Amino acid sequence: MTRIRLGMVGGGNDAFIGAVHRIAARIDDRYELVAGALSSTPEKSAASAEALGIARSYGSFEDMAAAEAAREDGIEAVAIVTPNHVHCAASAAFLKHGIHVICDKPLTSTMEDAHALVAAAEASSAKFILTHNYTGYPLIRQARQMVADGTLGKIRVVQAKYAQDWLTQPLEGEGVKQAEWRTDPARSGAGGCVGDIGTHAFNLAGFVTGLTLDSLAADLDSFVEGRRLDDNVHVLLRYAGGAKGMLWSSQVAPGNENRLTLRVYGEKGGIEWGQENPNVLHYTPYGEPTRILTRGGSGALPANLDATRIPPGHPEGYLEGFANIYNEAADVILADREDKIVAHVLPSVQDGLQGMKFIDACVRSSASDAAWVKV
Amino acid sequence: MTRIRLGMVGGGNDAFIGAVHRIAARIDDRYELVAGALSSTPEKSAASAEALGIARSYGSFEDMAAAEAAREDGIEAVAIVTPNHVHCAASAAFLKHGIHVICDKPLTSTMEDAHALVAAAEASSAKFILTHNYTGYPLIRQARQMVADGTLGKIRVVQAKYAQDWLTQPLEGEGVKQAEWRTDPARSGAGGCVGDIGTHAFNLAGFVTGLTLDSLAADLDSFVEGRRLDDNVHVLLRYAGGAKGMLWSSQVAPGNENRLTLRVYGEKGGIEWGQENPNVLHYTPYGEPTRILTRGGSGALPANLDATRIPPGHPEGYLEGFANIYNEAADVILADREDKIVAHVLPSVQDGLQGMKFIDACVRSSASDAAWVKV
Amino acid sequence: MTRIRLGMVGGGNDAFIGAVHRIAARIDDRYELVAGALSSTPEKSAASAEALGIARSYGSFEDMAAAEAAREDGIEAVAIVTPNHVHCAASAAFLKHGIHVICDKPLTSTMEDAHALVAAAEASSAKFILTHNYTGYPLIRQARQMVADGTLGKIRVVQAKYAQDWLTQPLEGEGVKQAEWRTDPARSGAGGCVGDIGTHAFNLAGFVTGLTLDSLAADLDSFVEGRRLDDNVHVLLRYAGGAKGMLWSSQVAPGNENRLTLRVYGEKGGIEWGQENPNVLHYTPYGEPTRILTRGGSGALPANLDATRIPPGHPEGYLEGFANIYNEAADVILADREDKIVAHVLPSVQDGLQGMKFIDACVRSSASDAAWVKV
Amino acid sequence: MTRIRLGMVGGGNDAFIGAVHRIAARIDDRYELVAGALSSTPEKSAASAEALGIARSYGSFEDMAAAEAAREDGIEAVAIVTPNHVHCAASAAFLKHGIHVICDKPLTSTMEDAHALVAAAEASSAKFILTHNYTGYPLIRQARQMVADGTLGKIRVVQAKYAQDWLTQPLEGEGVKQAEWRTDPARSGAGGCVGDIGTHAFNLAGFVTGLTLDSLAADLDSFVEGRRLDDNVHVLLRYAGGAKGMLWSSQVAPGNENRLTLRVYGEKGGIEWGQENPNVLHYTPYGEPTRILTRGGSGALPANLDATRIPPGHPEGYLEGFANIYNEAADVILADREDKIVAHVLPSVQDGLQGMKFIDACVRSSASDAAWVKV
Repeated sequence: MTRIRLGMVGGGNDAFIGAVHRIAARIDDRYELVAGALSSTPEKSAASAEALGIARSYGSFEDMAAAEAAREDGIEAVAIVTPNHVHCAASAAFLKHGIHVICDKPLTSTMEDAHALVAAAEASSAKFILTHNYTGYPLIRQARQMVADGTLGKIRVVQAKYAQDWLTQPLEGEGVKQAEWRTDPARSGAGGCVGDIGTHAFNLAGFVTGLTLDSLAADLDSFVEGRRLDDNVHVLLRYAGGAKGMLWSSQVAPGNENRLTLRVYGEKGGIEWGQENPNVLHYTPYGEPTRILTRGGSGALPANLDATRIPPGHPEGYLEGFANIYNEAADVILADREDKIVAHVLPSVQDGLQGMKFIDACVRSSASDAAWVKV
Repeated sequence: MTRIRLGMVGGGNDAFIGAVHRIAARIDDRYELVAGALSSTPEKSAASAEALGIARSYGSFEDMAAAEAAREDGIEAVAIVTPNHVHCAASAAFLKHGIHVICDKPLTSTMEDAHALVAAAEASSAKFILTHNYTGYPLIRQARQMVADGTLGKIRVVQAKYAQDWLTQPLEGEGVKQAEWRTDPARSGAGGCVGDIGTHAFNLAGFVTGLTLDSLAADLDSFVEGRRLDDNVHVLLRYAGGAKGMLWSSQVAPGNENRLTLRVYGEKGGIEWGQENPNVLHYTPYGEPTRILTRGGSGALPANLDATRIPPGHPEGYLEGFANIYNEAADVILADREDKIVAHVLPSVQDGLQGMKFIDACVRSSASDAAWVKV
Repeated sequence: MTRIRLGMVGGGNDAFIGAVHRIAARIDDRYELVAGALSSTPEKSAASAEALGIARSYGSFEDMAAAEAAREDGIEAVAIVTPNHVHCAASAAFLKHGIHVICDKPLTSTMEDAHALVAAAEASSAKFILTHNYTGYPLIRQARQMVADGTLGKIRVVQAKYAQDWLTQPLEGEGVKQAEWRTDPARSGAGGCVGDIGTHAFNLAGFVTGLTLDSLAADLDSFVEGRRLDDNVHVLLRYAGGAKGMLWSSQVAPGNENRLTLRVYGEKGGIEWGQENPNVLHYTPYGEPTRILTRGGSGALPANLDATRIPPGHPEGYLEGFANIYNEAADVILADREDKIVAHVLPSVQDGLQGMKFIDACVRSSASDAAWVKV
Repeated sequence: MTRIRLGMVGGGNDAFIGAVHRIAARIDDRYELVAGALSSTPEKSAASAEALGIARSYGSFEDMAAAEAAREDGIEAVAIVTPNHVHCAASAAFLKHGIHVICDKPLTSTMEDAHALVAAAEASSAKFILTHNYTGYPLIRQARQMVADGTLGKIRVVQAKYAQDWLTQPLEGEGVKQAEWRTDPARSGAGGCVGDIGTHAFNLAGFVTGLTLDSLAADLDSFVEGRRLDDNVHVLLRYAGGAKGMLWSSQVAPGNENRLTLRVYGEKGGIEWGQENPNVLHYTPYGEPTRILTRGGSGALPANLDATRIPPGHPEGYLEGFANIYNEAADVILADREDKIVAHVLPSVQDGLQGMKFIDACVRSSASDAAWVKV
């Protein structure tokens, strides 16, 4: 077994998502984290690297990309876990050198950057993988396969929701860093809640149903006084082919920690899933009793079983779902070593672009009094 | 104890809602059903009345109103449980004679009728009560009181949903009577799903929050081929004062029997409730653990306790909630006997008018490509 | 339609269970409550009867039985809703006159009385029906039918539970009447919690599985200082034929209102049900996904549908389940009017005797350091 | 950061638990797996080691213990993940050399071995840690702290359950390895289900409540024909100090995947938890509404927060709970490097001995017709 040599940009200090990526990369033991540009200054980066046991530390992602590309034993892939506005430049720096990129979502902070990154990804021989991590849950994989197999019939209705409550009060004015950058247009882009979590719900709906969004009408609000970006998002969706949807995303809904749920209804059946207890999927064939499908349990399809490590009834969670992205990325990267291609369902740069278009359309619609806009 | 003498219009054959009204009227033993115009012909009416043990049967509601008003021991109140298009004329016939009316929802089948019925109710000395029965659930009463008490702070977000699955296939073409009249514009009015169950969700949201709807954008669909009225409804809501909402109503969502749910979020807390298990209400004060409030259990407010018959943990259901409407109506009617007035929270003719305006606005908006319309 | 003329013994003052019986008898409109000996004195009885609109009031059940038997239009059936120690004498008084008895559980307060009542019931031409009301829930009926149909295969394991929390503190010393008589051996018999609610769990397990208890070992405790009867009960069960069971019953378990649950596992499948949300039954055929069966929903068997009034998804509760006992009793009584017999699943005097033997065996076992005893 | 050098005995082939230990050791990146005696033959061991990227492979645990103890850079700790009957000898081999042992449960397969291993552990300068992994769940840590803080008052009742369904049919005769050794007395010891999963429930109850078991009565069954060890276990528990309990463990209960649940009731409150959705804990202070406590959410105690990696609402599962054992073990081992001692709540060899006594007492009791026996 030869592990994939991995680098990381961002994730140096007490950043939440950097630690998540590192755990996700470790769980299945297919990566070795050997290089990093973890923080904004060389000193901080070096300190973080040492604390984490990472061999090579760089002062900037540009230096890192150049130096690693020049090494015989340089990194093969890099995880980009910075705030959104850095995604484009950092990703492009590595793609240019043929180093695979595993980048956090949303793709970028502006549409301009999004298109630039798409161009960079398409120009590169390296892979670009976006960590829309919720697509890694085994029962989401099962749901996607069920829809693709026609088990639900033609899809009619999609209900997607992602609700939190942690921004119910103006934490950004109280020194909470996670709140600060997420409510700052300069670092997050034009979308607040819609970009931070609404995109996850949108992406998940698309991943499971395979539907393409045609147009939307969005009503964005900033309920907390003085907040510069939206903290509550109501969207009506019209998919190509006639399916309709609703999407609610909020960070001001007390009682919701990370309530991401998806309901999909077709001519022949319906499914319901929620990430707070991701190990069950309710499936109702029309006219029959609802089935409780479980991760790896009776009735599990290959797409479910392949994303499962331990027996049903032993819960797997967020980190395991995230690790499924890293694990499948490892398949892709190892195949690429040998110039092979493997089938996969990983979110791509195009999925990232769709997410950016969704954010952009929501912001445009809301600015036009929630009129319908094409995506 | 003197029971209130009650009559009934409609509900003669195997009508679902007529039987429900009769049980609801019986549960607390405050009514005596003594007269009826139960069916469309005198013969059918008489047969139904005899089967039900109702003393006096009439061939039409007009005859019944006149005859009962003339009797010393005539009915004091009448339940109107016909299809929607009969509500207006039947109600008006009794209101004219000073007989209280307990009428099923929606108020009428047309806006014109709605305004006529409002006028009739306002011109009458008798009471008009609309059976938006879900307002009778004890925990809905508790939720309303909590909002009124300011427990949730200023309301920001309302999420209302009423999903069914029984019209997933074209039952109206297969001889199912309940499906036939509900999908027939002549009998149901301009709204299908939106009028049948969407109004319940809309009414419930208003009952609990006390908010007034300002405008909406609605996307109505008829997913089943050939269906003449909507079977799936997506609505964005804007309330006076700045609160926002979403409402989803569907009769084509497999896995949903009668999934009516309400979520309300304010500056200080949030609540969640669903009618399929109506004996619990989740309440989260911001920054504290979620509480599970129960019907009549610890933390129950008077509004909850007053609507409760049996100890907590013993479930009360749909019929008991419906009976709470009849029970409170009895308070109002008995007080009226003595020219007194009692405080109550019963849905009124104005609430019915609001419901009709909601349906009308949804239909208008959807016809204008889901543009925003004032209610 | 001719309603059955019904009398009631007990239930006069603020007694919980008397009001429940009256509602249960009213829901389906097949009874007319016309006579009562509702309280311990003629004056109180008369006052209660008047308040309830009951035509004939008696000072004692003996007087009532004699007088009603002598009337042409005397009662055909009587509901006995007194404390346990009165059940035997009151029931016998009516059975002697050929008046059907609908009696609350447990059967009596002593084994001696239990045998006497069995003799009285067997000697009478009238029917004796015990209101083990939980057997009236539609999904319990479905579960019973599934077991009888062999759907679960041979039964191996039974887990029954009935937990409450209201006696966590010594309410009997604080003037709470419901607590006083339930903890008083003179009025409740030798069993406290085991008689009050443990018998319900035991009866339910037997009703669903059809199994006969062979022996048990019981560990009874009175956790509240000074309490004279048990408030927590642990029982191991051995059924004839080899099935094993556990039964837990408690009135000192904070967080449990009326948590009655039943789990049954056989060679081919398992089921789980809880009365706090009685409208669902989980059923797992071995090796397949769990099904959520609902009251009246997809997959409902006749036994379920026959006990259902309203569409699935609209919850029916405790009162409706109780009313199912009264409704089926009406079938039996009306058939008896014409000397006919109808099949039914109503709890009988023999079921009551089994319950008394269960209580007796639990008390005996616990007194012998929880040794195994034959039932 | 210097990682702890770790070895592993067992876990070579497709063993479930070996892979779990490896992931658990990796999640927080505090161990480096450098040596192994992974299988029963040197060839198989070497193949497994190579596949897993483990540097040093040995043909037996004896060789490994001797060789690693002799190296400057030898392992500091070893994970023992063999079938039960090997635990004692393997653990002792490393303890003798001062190498810390992290051993899977149950402690051993016989009481004789259990006492021998206790002696070995007590004679060694090295630590012995038993992976009763369910004690690692954050909300179990919270529950333990709540009991210790007196939040529930004096404990009265404990209800513990661990139910599975995978052995409902005789898989051991169908070539399923996991079923074969678990039903083989030579490899599992005298307890089947009781040893495999009953001990987990017993251990968890003791971990949370701090209670010591005094005596028990157990009814063990082998429902599947020909099975040599129990597959269903019913136990009554009496704790020192007067608390009572029940424990049910089954591997023949269709519909249960890994349903481990714990309910604890005291004079002042009650708690309920289940591992299939381990991120919530229901807590009811007597007389108040039930609270839903979450992993890391509002109301989380330090014991909960310290065992948490990601924000509330993002589920952590079985592997993370297991990793908490490894993480805390790392604290203990690193402190030991510097001859320091840190407070911890890790299951010890004495806890393992208690588990063995529990199994032994269950088997003895059941052999005596489920008589009460001292533990």
